[in-house]
Amino acid sequence: MTKGVKIVTIGGGSSYTPELVEGFIKRYHELPIKELWLVDIPEGEEKLNIVGTLAKRMVEKSGLPIDVHLTLDRREALKDADFVTTQFRVGLLDARAKDESIPLKYGVIGQETNGPGGLFKGLRTIPVILDICKDMEELCPNAWLVNFTNPAGMVTEAVLRYTNINKVVGLCNVPVGIRMGIAKVLGVEANRIQIDFAGLNHMVYGLDVFLDGESILEDLIDKLTSNNESGVTMKNIVDLGWEPDFIKGLKVIPCPYHRYYYQTSRMLEEELEASKTVGTRAQVVKQVEKELFELYKDPNLNIKPPQLEKRGGAYYSDAACSLISSIYNDKQDIQTVNTRNNGAIASIPDDSAIEINCVITKEGPKPIAVGDLPVAVRGLVQEIKSFERIAAEAAVTGDYNTALLAMVINPLVPSDKIAKQILDEMLEAHKDHLPQFANSIKV
Amino acid sequence: MTKGVKIVTIGGGSSYTPELVEGFIKRYHELPIKELWLVDIPEGEEKLNIVGTLAKRMVEKSGLPIDVHLTLDRREALKDADFVTTQFRVGLLDARAKDESIPLKYGVIGQETNGPGGLFKGLRTIPVILDICKDMEELCPNAWLVNFTNPAGMVTEAVLRYTNINKVVGLCNVPVGIRMGIAKVLGVEANRIQIDFAGLNHMVYGLDVFLDGESILEDLIDKLTSNNESGVTMKNIVDLGWEPDFIKGLKVIPCPYHRYYYQTSRMLEEELEASKTVGTRAQVVKQVEKELFELYKDPNLNIKPPQLEKRGGAYYSDAACSLISSIYNDKQDIQTVNTRNNGAIASIPDDSAIEINCVITKEGPKPIAVGDLPVAVRGLVQEIKSFERIAAEAAVTGDYNTALLAMVINPLVPSDKIAKQILDEMLEAHKDHLPQFANSIKV
Amino acid sequence: MTKGVKIVTIGGGSSYTPELVEGFIKRYHELPIKELWLVDIPEGEEKLNIVGTLAKRMVEKSGLPIDVHLTLDRREALKDADFVTTQFRVGLLDARAKDESIPLKYGVIGQETNGPGGLFKGLRTIPVILDICKDMEELCPNAWLVNFTNPAGMVTEAVLRYTNINKVVGLCNVPVGIRMGIAKVLGVEANRIQIDFAGLNHMVYGLDVFLDGESILEDLIDKLTSNNESGVTMKNIVDLGWEPDFIKGLKVIPCPYHRYYYQTSRMLEEELEASKTVGTRAQVVKQVEKELFELYKDPNLNIKPPQLEKRGGAYYSDAACSLISSIYNDKQDIQTVNTRNNGAIASIPDDSAIEINCVITKEGPKPIAVGDLPVAVRGLVQEIKSFERIAAEAAVTGDYNTALLAMVINPLVPSDKIAKQILDEMLEAHKDHLPQFANSIKV
Amino acid sequence: MTKGVKIVTIGGGSSYTPELVEGFIKRYHELPIKELWLVDIPEGEEKLNIVGTLAKRMVEKSGLPIDVHLTLDRREALKDADFVTTQFRVGLLDARAKDESIPLKYGVIGQETNGPGGLFKGLRTIPVILDICKDMEELCPNAWLVNFTNPAGMVTEAVLRYTNINKVVGLCNVPVGIRMGIAKVLGVEANRIQIDFAGLNHMVYGLDVFLDGESILEDLIDKLTSNNESGVTMKNIVDLGWEPDFIKGLKVIPCPYHRYYYQTSRMLEEELEASKTVGTRAQVVKQVEKELFELYKDPNLNIKPPQLEKRGGAYYSDAACSLISSIYNDKQDIQTVNTRNNGAIASIPDDSAIEINCVITKEGPKPIAVGDLPVAVRGLVQEIKSFERIAAEAAVTGDYNTALLAMVINPLVPSDKIAKQILDEMLEAHKDHLPQFANSIKV
Repeated sequence: MTKGVKIVTIGGGSSYTPELVEGFIKRYHELPIKELWLVDIPEGEEKLNIVGTLAKRMVEKSGLPIDVHLTLDRREALKDADFVTTQFRVGLLDARAKDESIPLKYGVIGQETNGPGGLFKGLRTIPVILDICKDMEELCPNAWLVNFTNPAGMVTEAVLRYTNINKVVGLCNVPVGIRMGIAKVLGVEANRIQIDFAGLNHMVYGLDVFLDGESILEDLIDKLTSNNESGVTMKNIVDLGWEPDFIKGLKVIPCPYHRYYYQTSRMLEEELEASKTVGTRAQVVKQVEKELFELYKDPNLNIKPPQLEKRGGAYYSDAACSLISSIYNDKQDIQTVNTRNNGAIASIPDDSAIEINCVITKEGPKPIAVGDLPVAVRGLVQEIKSFERIAAEAAVTGDYNTALLAMVINPLVPSDKIAKQILDEMLEAHKDHLPQFANSIKV
Repeated sequence: MTKGVKIVTIGGGSSYTPELVEGFIKRYHELPIKELWLVDIPEGEEKLNIVGTLAKRMVEKSGLPIDVHLTLDRREALKDADFVTTQFRVGLLDARAKDESIPLKYGVIGQETNGPGGLFKGLRTIPVILDICKDMEELCPNAWLVNFTNPAGMVTEAVLRYTNINKVVGLCNVPVGIRMGIAKVLGVEANRIQIDFAGLNHMVYGLDVFLDGESILEDLIDKLTSNNESGVTMKNIVDLGWEPDFIKGLKVIPCPYHRYYYQTSRMLEEELEASKTVGTRAQVVKQVEKELFELYKDPNLNIKPPQLEKRGGAYYSDAACSLISSIYNDKQDIQTVNTRNNGAIASIPDDSAIEINCVITKEGPKPIAVGDLPVAVRGLVQEIKSFERIAAEAAVTGDYNTALLAMVINPLVPSDKIAKQILDEMLEAHKDHLPQFANSIKV
Repeated sequence: MTKGVKIVTIGGGSSYTPELVEGFIKRYHELPIKELWLVDIPEGEEKLNIVGTLAKRMVEKSGLPIDVHLTLDRREALKDADFVTTQFRVGLLDARAKDESIPLKYGVIGQETNGPGGLFKGLRTIPVILDICKDMEELCPNAWLVNFTNPAGMVTEAVLRYTNINKVVGLCNVPVGIRMGIAKVLGVEANRIQIDFAGLNHMVYGLDVFLDGESILEDLIDKLTSNNESGVTMKNIVDLGWEPDFIKGLKVIPCPYHRYYYQTSRMLEEELEASKTVGTRAQVVKQVEKELFELYKDPNLNIKPPQLEKRGGAYYSDAACSLISSIYNDKQDIQTVNTRNNGAIASIPDDSAIEINCVITKEGPKPIAVGDLPVAVRGLVQEIKSFERIAAEAAVTGDYNTALLAMVINPLVPSDKIAKQILDEMLEAHKDHLPQFANSIKV
Repeated sequence: MTKGVKIVTIGGGSSYTPELVEGFIKRYHELPIKELWLVDIPEGEEKLNIVGTLAKRMVEKSGLPIDVHLTLDRREALKDADFVTTQFRVGLLDARAKDESIPLKYGVIGQETNGPGGLFKGLRTIPVILDICKDMEELCPNAWLVNFTNPAGMVTEAVLRYTNINKVVGLCNVPVGIRMGIAKVLGVEANRIQIDFAGLNHMVYGLDVFLDGESILEDLIDKLTSNNESGVTMKNIVDLGWEPDFIKGLKVIPCPYHRYYYQTSRMLEEELEASKTVGTRAQVVKQVEKELFELYKDPNLNIKPPQLEKRGGAYYSDAACSLISSIYNDKQDIQTVNTRNNGAIASIPDDSAIEINCVITKEGPKPIAVGDLPVAVRGLVQEIKSFERIAAEAAVTGDYNTALLAMVINPLVPSDKIAKQILDEMLEAHKDHLPQFANSIKV
């Protein structure tokens, strides 16, 4: 890599790109990027141009010798890449809106990663990711695939199981978010907090929490659960309104997404209520994005606008830059990523993807063994792993019964009949992005 | 055992006892019982006398030299026993009625084995079972404990984990019922059907089905799912109204109890409806039992009355007799029982209880290894195993938070708040039978 | 199989064949064989004719409608077979003589199954077996392969790992021999003895021993070890001259082949001594065989001659008949065979071959889970498993370094230098039967 | 620990102590030791005074406020310790001489860690270690036990299995030695080399080797094996005279101790030869030690004398200081230590000790999962693990048969008879240090 690093970002027209560019500029001293290729599809060309032009202004301001390329030709971009990041959304936010709203019609939470919505996001996304992998095998076989397209766990599982790409890492901002949230609760710098994370994407638990290397788990749970009662609120991460005694019994830190599984009925009520007032999350995000792109168009803007942080994916792109730098520099620091289990969690197969603390080396992430997860959480984690694997199989085979199976075994779906109704309506609604199911859609 | 076999039945006053006695009489040529002790508690004395007197009449009619003893003194009965069967119900059917009706008030299925009701049945039952085990260690350390008190999986788990009794088998009539049902669908004798069962109690799957030793799984699923559509009905076992495509995707045979998990919302509706009309299952059973005991009182009755078969626990007692005879005679035949996993199912810990096909020897059941369960069912099975273990821990420790944890992680319970409400109401309702929670019940 | 069973015996000219034929005749009432094809290679034609003609006389005497076919055309024979047995020896006894004598020159035991000799037997045999499997996939895809060609464990491993044949069973007469031996020591009928066998081929342990279903392990070990001291001798099986305290510490029953590993230096001395007097085992067997074939030629002989039982492979062919009948009749009895582990022994991979008690069904053997082997034997078993896998890999790839690796890690080989010397001399000596190593043999 | 760190060194009179003291002085800026207690037994008092006085001179020269205490009262020393290091030798070098010479009389390598000598070193050492652990539980329950007393793997196994001390780490200088050796071969700085170590103590393999984060394993093996042939020599680490093709087949880097297992006969010849000329290793070391203590007495000496590096345990004490500092400072760097497996190596039980790369945190080492070891080495590793566990059991129980079992299953011991002879002679020779075997020694 003495030639300077070449990075390719698939889905370069995303609103997140400025954070990514900022992250690369900030780390140039240790990660000397020579070429940054932003790739998108024809439907995304306009956004690509807007955000790509902003990226060029940001680089120009930095004075660094990074070449920013905008292209619709993925294969040209991939040639000899060192790192490929993926952050696209097949079907854009309209597809997400359907992922969320169709299940709701049947009284079911859509949940765009590990729920019925996530199933469909996976069915649409996995074939595209597998295509990218095929191109990578040919054009940049030594490159790392850093995926932060959701459902990141299911996507990583599919890459590990159905491609020859071993150099894949799935990324999520949840672990870093929990760390930030806990630091805030304790009123300390985040870098003094370490958390033993293990589980799956959006299904990760903090098995222990350390302040300056010493376990504070028990005190923290006391503090979080009593804060809870006393009405102190901590945005998004901590203030989930958990039953204090439940968390005391659980003895580990859940992630925000666990609300969908441990508080299903409460979340459903909230979502139904929101759908009547502010709209689905997709609709909210759509509005935010629209405003962001208006900002990005400003020819005087040459920094990441602060409004982006409200977008919801905070830390995501920065986590990606940090990961890439640790691989490039063989930093051997600890980050929480999605990778091959390799025995780190006993009850999950060795060849499945998990989300876990890893030592990040030039050869990629090496998971730190935890033995097994606590008994109480082992079941739910296994259930989502079953769901991810069956969903990935359905995405690859286009088999209707397998897709129905994935839908039925999802813990958010209350019956096989409802599963079938949701499945049929979603297959129809998304049919343009599900060519593999062409023969399965019942007219 | 040359002295003749001594069998002790705890909960001897149960309405099931006549089937057990019939089973022993039928097998006397291979299982020479010298003493049969029917044990009950003072509250059950009247029933014990009624059913015990019937048992004596049945034995008398048979002309066999079996001594039937009725007693309230468990320790006297246990002395030098060869087999101890347990079939009692702490709190009787009134407790079951609460197990079913309290959750329903919160829109939750009670489910008396693997649901919230099963949690409380376990909390009441496990301490009594552990007491019996302590007596057995002292009074009949070489005896086998054959448990068919529900929740049989949780109880077996608790005995394996919290006592020194290794000679324990948990029994259920579900596997034999499925076999009977499939034989009926196919119009063949049940003994021509073999099924590879594996899973947990009331959470067991038929991984493959054989007719005369050849796999017929695929054809059977086609047949069951098309029967289904064509409106053919098969009482209780087969006609569960599964979505045909779901079962085709699943590729294994679920058990009737899987309806609670794969058809939660439909089952809930049925139960709510039934509670308004015929009453809960407990109320129905109570009426049946009342009628049975009226019959039992008839001094001219000296056989198992045919009405007993409608009771719902068909095959249960006969399965127990068959198991005892196979152990006694080292038959090495294959039966489906609850036993220590020992590696037979990969993703379940070696030392946990599972329900699986075993070779039945004089040394007890030896499980046949299946590798691992199919991916699609591994999650739900793990979830119930987590529930069983945490529930058993709560039963032993009397810890409120642990009991709440068991309730929250149960797949039928839709949120931590509702879990707590149900828990608190049930702890209060059952407090007479939950001395270990004396300090946890909030006044 | 209503058409009558078709059995194909590869290596039909073996001196064992009369036992096999006797076994089939004896079981005709339950295993109605219509065709028995004895197949051999041109070099074996003379023997095939001698033994085949005897087989025909035996069938004729029985009066049964079994057609015996003799052929050199393997593919013709395999067409639509139901069971294929393999009992051939690539390179005949001359090759075995080299397997035994070459290592001895370097002070190393040859040991024709799990030693350096076994490595070469595997290198010669596995490619032929894989060819047979390829023919079977095409010509009789539903047939069972019943292999009793040694090294049976390595061969079963190779079939499981490198072919699409799942219906394979490896057979050995060691377990039945141990059972017979123990019955003799105890002076009881063999069918009253049950042994929990687990391990690998020629590396199997009796984990527990039962008389009429009750464990007698401790007493048996006392008896065997004191017999030992008092000079009582039990041919071949029991009188191995073990150190009594070692067996008392081991707490399980070793098999005769364990002498090679637990008494390496003593066995080496014996073999060196024997090589000077009676010759290697191959030379002894060669003489026995010569005499047997002289007997077989007698046109008046129409039974299995009693002299065959001295041949050393007693019970082998009968075990094969018994296994075939249990599969054909779905007997669900317990036999000890080589099959896919499937989790039955925890520290061996699920997809490796092990030797273990199985329930024999029409779908083949189903292993009974033992959890894990006792700590003290786990190491040696794993070592032979490593050896078998690396040896099978060498047989398939013809890679010199891999073959050397197998030789070095074999516990009988005392150094890498000696391993290389033995390897080189044996590769040269066997080169006619090792085409896959054509490029590796150093001239 | 704001009070300043208290370190206790059991076996403080060891000749290694000056390296330890040097290591602490060098790291004072990050590891502020307030008290260093050197503890020894009455027999070691003279040495303790010599080396302790040197330690005091070294500290005085450094000008640091470290208090050095010399004591024979272990319990006084342990009170409130933060770290306890153990580096003692029960029976001193005379015992080692017997460990090496007695087996040699029977033509067997003594091998003082994983051979028959190691068994006896374990039998003598483990009871003392368990006593220390008992004191620690009482006097300094939060302290870390850093053990570098051999056999370090067996000792760590015993502490994990038979005490309540979880904070234990076993240390060895082999991994760092291999790293140094490889760096020297490649002519690069050692800190540019990373090695993925996994296995057991003195049975560890380098599964992959990295230069600046990139794998160089294949090239390195080529280089090492060709160096080998060309006669280039690299002291102790690399120049083991391996058969080049064996290492090419093995595809991982063995450690120097592997010579005992892969080159048993060659090592035996060397040892027999050496015993006739230079004497056993124990005798050589004894002479070196004598000279060292002469040096240590010099009142003008106030540094670690350079001659110590020739002692053979180079890097040992420095590795201990480095480990202690990483724990104290929560450095999260990667070191290779002996710790609880926790699933990091699949075929070894979770609760056994392994030697593996770990992230070193304030909570101790966290092993990095490797999935499973390569097939070819899995057997030998399992065999030594079996040996270690049975040996530890014998040390704790004092059971003669268990000790014999450990001796027989050791791969260096060629037969059960010889095992018994060696065992009996060694039990007698060491009887003063084996009180637990008082009843087993045959007069």
